[in-house]
Amino acid sequence: MSDIHSQHLSQSIQRIQLLLNRKELIEAWLHSQNQQPKHALVESLTHRQHLAELKRLINRLHPADTALLLESIPPEHRPLIWHLVDEDKAGAVLLELSDSVKQPLISASDTNVLTAAAQHLESDEIADLVQDLPEDVAPDLLCSLSSDERDQVRSAMSFPEDCVGAWMEFDIPVVRDDISLDVVLRFFRRQGSLPDNSGQIMVIDDYGHLKGTLALEDLLTHSGDLPIADVLDSKPITFHTNSSAEDAARSFERYELIVAPVVNAHNKLVGVLRVTALMDLIAELAHKKLLLNAGLNKEENLFDPIITSAKNRWPWIALNLFIVFIASRIIDQFETVITHVVALAALLPITANIGGNAGNQVVALVIRGLATKQLNASNTLQLLRKELSISLMNGLIWGSVTALITYTLYSNFLLSCVMMLAMLSTMLFASFIGVAIPIALKRLGQDPALGSSVIITGTTDTLGFLIFLGLAAVIL
Amino acid sequence: MSDIHSQHLSQSIQRIQLLLNRKELIEAWLHSQNQQPKHALVESLTHRQHLAELKRLINRLHPADTALLLESIPPEHRPLIWHLVDEDKAGAVLLELSDSVKQPLISASDTNVLTAAAQHLESDEIADLVQDLPEDVAPDLLCSLSSDERDQVRSAMSFPEDCVGAWMEFDIPVVRDDISLDVVLRFFRRQGSLPDNSGQIMVIDDYGHLKGTLALEDLLTHSGDLPIADVLDSKPITFHTNSSAEDAARSFERYELIVAPVVNAHNKLVGVLRVTALMDLIAELAHKKLLLNAGLNKEENLFDPIITSAKNRWPWIALNLFIVFIASRIIDQFETVITHVVALAALLPITANIGGNAGNQVVALVIRGLATKQLNASNTLQLLRKELSISLMNGLIWGSVTALITYTLYSNFLLSCVMMLAMLSTMLFASFIGVAIPIALKRLGQDPALGSSVIITGTTDTLGFLIFLGLAAVIL
Repeated sequence: MSDIHSQHLSQSIQRIQLLLNRKELIEAWLHSQNQQPKHALVESLTHRQHLAELKRLINRLHPADTALLLESIPPEHRPLIWHLVDEDKAGAVLLELSDSVKQPLISASDTNVLTAAAQHLESDEIADLVQDLPEDVAPDLLCSLSSDERDQVRSAMSFPEDCVGAWMEFDIPVVRDDISLDVVLRFFRRQGSLPDNSGQIMVIDDYGHLKGTLALEDLLTHSGDLPIADVLDSKPITFHTNSSAEDAARSFERYELIVAPVVNAHNKLVGVLRVTALMDLIAELAHKKLLLNAGLNKEENLFDPIITSAKNRWPWIALNLFIVFIASRIIDQFETVITHVVALAALLPITANIGGNAGNQVVALVIRGLATKQLNASNTLQLLRKELSISLMNGLIWGSVTALITYTLYSNFLLSCVMMLAMLSTMLFASFIGVAIPIALKRLGQDPALGSSVIITGTTDTLGFLIFLGLAAVIL
Repeated sequence: MSDIHSQHLSQSIQRIQLLLNRKELIEAWLHSQNQQPKHALVESLTHRQHLAELKRLINRLHPADTALLLESIPPEHRPLIWHLVDEDKAGAVLLELSDSVKQPLISASDTNVLTAAAQHLESDEIADLVQDLPEDVAPDLLCSLSSDERDQVRSAMSFPEDCVGAWMEFDIPVVRDDISLDVVLRFFRRQGSLPDNSGQIMVIDDYGHLKGTLALEDLLTHSGDLPIADVLDSKPITFHTNSSAEDAARSFERYELIVAPVVNAHNKLVGVLRVTALMDLIAELAHKKLLLNAGLNKEENLFDPIITSAKNRWPWIALNLFIVFIASRIIDQFETVITHVVALAALLPITANIGGNAGNQVVALVIRGLATKQLNASNTLQLLRKELSISLMNGLIWGSVTALITYTLYSNFLLSCVMMLAMLSTMLFASFIGVAIPIALKRLGQDPALGSSVIITGTTDTLGFLIFLGLAAVIL
């Protein structure tokens, strides 16, 4: 990445890692941690200088970068870095960390440190953080907030992760709908600040109902004596607190939104959605599909404890084992024909394997089509027809190739025919379930990506063998 | 999606599809298309009324929604809808369409329609569109632009897709660094408009060098007599025209940017990046990984022509076939032991298949880790160690399960031992290449997701068979 910022960034990261690699520094610090008083952090002067430099470097980083640094260094170095992060940045850093890195740091910190860190966050951020805090810290933290903030935190916490309510923010500029632009300008001048990336000012009536939004651009460019009602956008795209967050993210993408009002069931303005929050969601969702597709249904982080990660994969190994043993039983039924033509054992994996990959290609297309909503009830059949024709074509072409190779290897004409036919029918079958499985999963209210590659590979194997050996039994 | 907008949306979409399903309407229209004069669009009154309603409904839609509608209706209905889209929306609609839908519509439209459509677009959008236009239209279009616009289009077209230059926008509010906030305000008031989602005003010196950015929020809240230099952010995160667009998108995500300046090699301001443009990129990139992972290296759309899609998959089928034939040859070498214990043929797929899926799970994690930059040279070994321990654990647990099942099936102790050992070693091997392959692909300058699932499945099959039959040959 060749932009200016990231050049500086990589320089300081390098320097930090250089300092961290001085074993004795870490040891001295850990040592000093165990003995009171804390302020005698380390004995030697050089150590103190290095720590000072480390602290300076770390706190020059953007919280997101500090988080990334913590993620990518070995666990034993993390407490030191975490200890050196300034109070006003600590909260922001915690929010960026993955659970596996966050939890140890939280449990290692004292209550007052965590409470202080949270002080510097917005209500919606505190709501995210509170869920990770130990039982005894959360109440103290909530008490330390203003009653307004406390209500906001509570309301944010009351919504499930996949609802807009859980992603909305509360620090929004609001004005009444019965004033002029000049009054709005004077109001904000007096107030002296606007939240970053406000983008739009929310306009409400006396009862707090949303009347529309006023873009800062319009506020700036229209003459000040105009009443706000003449300038505002009275039909902005608006979300309910219980709207699906994923759909909201897609709307932001499609309609190029920066900020949108969130209203409750009574059309009262309760918060805003910002693109900055939803970008994370979009990336998350996309990566989730990649993991789901491979059969990792629980969110797994790179450096989760081994036992957690191992267990995380059990359900799919189990399912996989179950399916493949069915396949194995099928082969077992054809014992006689295999003993008759041992070459069959060698050729067995070919059609199933090709079918599996063909199926996975279709699945990937379908998953994307469903995510982008390009694929829907009205055109599913059209897609199925298309995929079947592709398989017919590729099955014929690559079936003949396979048959040819088989013939050169075993110079057995009938065997080549078996390969040809098995290849063709397996590919047709693969593209059929490649379309069917993600759509079925969606109908069942599951994510279409959920374990689909595992299921595809399993089923294509099973039926691939059945088709191949069945044909062999008949033809040979 | 329960927000207000999408309720209206789905209603009008339903109505549109209802109208489209009136066969005679389409026929009448197609018929009228073939005979001049055009204005006698359709004969019957009801038809004319229906078309009028259709036109009204369609042009009430957001261009993104019109595009989605076109994507999801059968090809034969698309020309009618496209014909009814208003000139000022047509360009925006084209930009949202996938190539397979866009191309036919473009080639069906006359030059003046396309030129007119492009007139309503920004320079950067025109640059995207021009690449899809027929040879004879592009020049006319470029001539119809102002010389400034033409330069912008040319420069935008001169950058490769994966560079920031190809994604930047040119409609930016710019002011000099030597004026006061009041002057800025007056300037924009006089100008009467600001581009949507400006967010930040770019501040340059007499030579066009970037001096910093001024947030509209700050412009609004600070007293007007302050010189701009006191308020501006003098170190905004800035990108070079040749920076990687993907990295830029990640920076936007991490630092919660809305808009960022783009400078050339001489630090001259040439454009801005907007989050609205990069959101598309982020979603695209994530989906691309899903497709690449399954072995679809060329961007493929749901309804591309069959032949295109079929060819798109050939390289991977070929590679796949090559690998699996190697596997087949390996099995062939163990003919004797298989004839000796036919059960081997039936048990053959089990370890390989389990290994394949285990490998794919690791690959998914690694691809995500590389994308989020959580995985880097410093912690790759740590991850490898972790994954190997997981495989050791799962290999032992599920190896024993498999051995147990095998024993109950064939009551052959040695055979169960073979299964156990084969399972363990295949899973260890799978997690090793699961980490190795994506990282190797990245080192080779490829996308780590490129066909990794195909490669994994192939290699685990090959070595899975080798290990299993090898052990069998030794032990049995």
